[in-house]
Amino acid sequence: MTEQQMASYPVDDINRVKRRHQRAHYDHATVHAVLDSATLCHVSYVVDGLPYCTPTLYWREGSTLYWHGSSASRMLRNLSDGQPACLTVTHLDSLVLARSAFHHSADYRSVMAFGHARLIEDENEKARALTMMVDRLFPGRTATLRPTTEQELKATSVVTMEIEKASAKIRAAGVIDDEEDYALPIYAERLPIRTVIDPAEPDGRLLQGVARPATLAAFGAGRRLDEALTEAYAMSYPAG
Amino acid sequence: MTEQQMASYPVDDINRVKRRHQRAHYDHATVHAVLDSATLCHVSYVVDGLPYCTPTLYWREGSTLYWHGSSASRMLRNLSDGQPACLTVTHLDSLVLARSAFHHSADYRSVMAFGHARLIEDENEKARALTMMVDRLFPGRTATLRPTTEQELKATSVVTMEIEKASAKIRAAGVIDDEEDYALPIYAERLPIRTVIDPAEPDGRLLQGVARPATLAAFGAGRRLDEALTEAYAMSYPAG
Repeated sequence: MTEQQMASYPVDDINRVKRRHQRAHYDHATVHAVLDSATLCHVSYVVDGLPYCTPTLYWREGSTLYWHGSSASRMLRNLSDGQPACLTVTHLDSLVLARSAFHHSADYRSVMAFGHARLIEDENEKARALTMMVDRLFPGRTATLRPTTEQELKATSVVTMEIEKASAKIRAAGVIDDEEDYALPIYAERLPIRTVIDPAEPDGRLLQGVARPATLAAFGAGRRLDEALTEAYAMSYPAG
Repeated sequence: MTEQQMASYPVDDINRVKRRHQRAHYDHATVHAVLDSATLCHVSYVVDGLPYCTPTLYWREGSTLYWHGSSASRMLRNLSDGQPACLTVTHLDSLVLARSAFHHSADYRSVMAFGHARLIEDENEKARALTMMVDRLFPGRTATLRPTTEQELKATSVVTMEIEKASAKIRAAGVIDDEEDYALPIYAERLPIRTVIDPAEPDGRLLQGVARPATLAAFGAGRRLDEALTEAYAMSYPAG
């Protein structure tokens, strides 16, 4: 095992998984694998003592998370200056139908990442982050696009958050019943759930001769989204 | 339009959609349709001033939301007595590749629901809620299961939250570019994303002759999960 594979996020009362701790992981490799296989997260933050939970696109670079929004958004206005945030990513992998209501469950992979969010003020740093927002999903795409204008850059805010603590929680167990319940004539199953990519819909106003670039090959019809995103991530950040 | 279809959640500074308000909906019909087509939500709450974002299964009954957990869970210990919470549900429907980085986007359906959470103390109310947790997904299933024991009931907590305010935000627009950018030889597409049900995996220890009940027909291989859940919801709560 390399040093990087063994590296872990520190554990304290904030991020320690209290229930079902056998499902918990704190190592970078597991936490990052869950993060890199999704593009949608939910960010929690506090405004005037009240909790908000906002869905948004995000991306990772090392132990740093990024998300973006309009400069006028409430979320970003309230996550600009070191406020605490919790960014959570969840994959639903199955519904589990057991022989008792109590053992009905779900298979899932989730990460809760804790830190303090700040706006990126430096224009170059912001421009670079926004390039990676697109290129992390679609490697090399930014270079093929109409360049971003100064006005667009001004209208966009990017938030960055160092992951100070994180935990992954993974259940991949299917049906688990009490031993005596296996003798009962009750139907039980694991119902797998999968998020997939459907056939791309090319824009109706493409110029003649403009074809789908080969760099989008990872996003082929029928592929699992988590696999395509993991593959794209590895192409964009070969260092991991 | 019936009175029920027109009913809306009140709007104030908490739940008013500030950005892209043309994507906002506050009527019960739209908000509930998003909620009833999912089973996984993210709940935000505040502990010692810090935000947490926990993924969990949930269900709806009228304007009341429910979720459950171990009686020992941090989330439920901190959402037992009228604390504010925000429950968010998001469906990712596409990734949008535009001709400029600025117009890259996603199609989605999301709901943020705000209220105050409390533990269900009454044992009968709790037992009824847990029945609906299973039957909302799989209509009539609880009656076919090994009954819940008193110990199991004691080990489970159920939280309930009246939706005081809510907003739905929906983007279903695909590629939208600046008019002058359509003249550029740049590839653009809408990449549809779909969450589907894979073939059920019957438990390996089923007794001979125990077959999949007809009531699970909605959860057939290849179906969209959001459609199956909406159908199951309508069977469980015919009144809407």
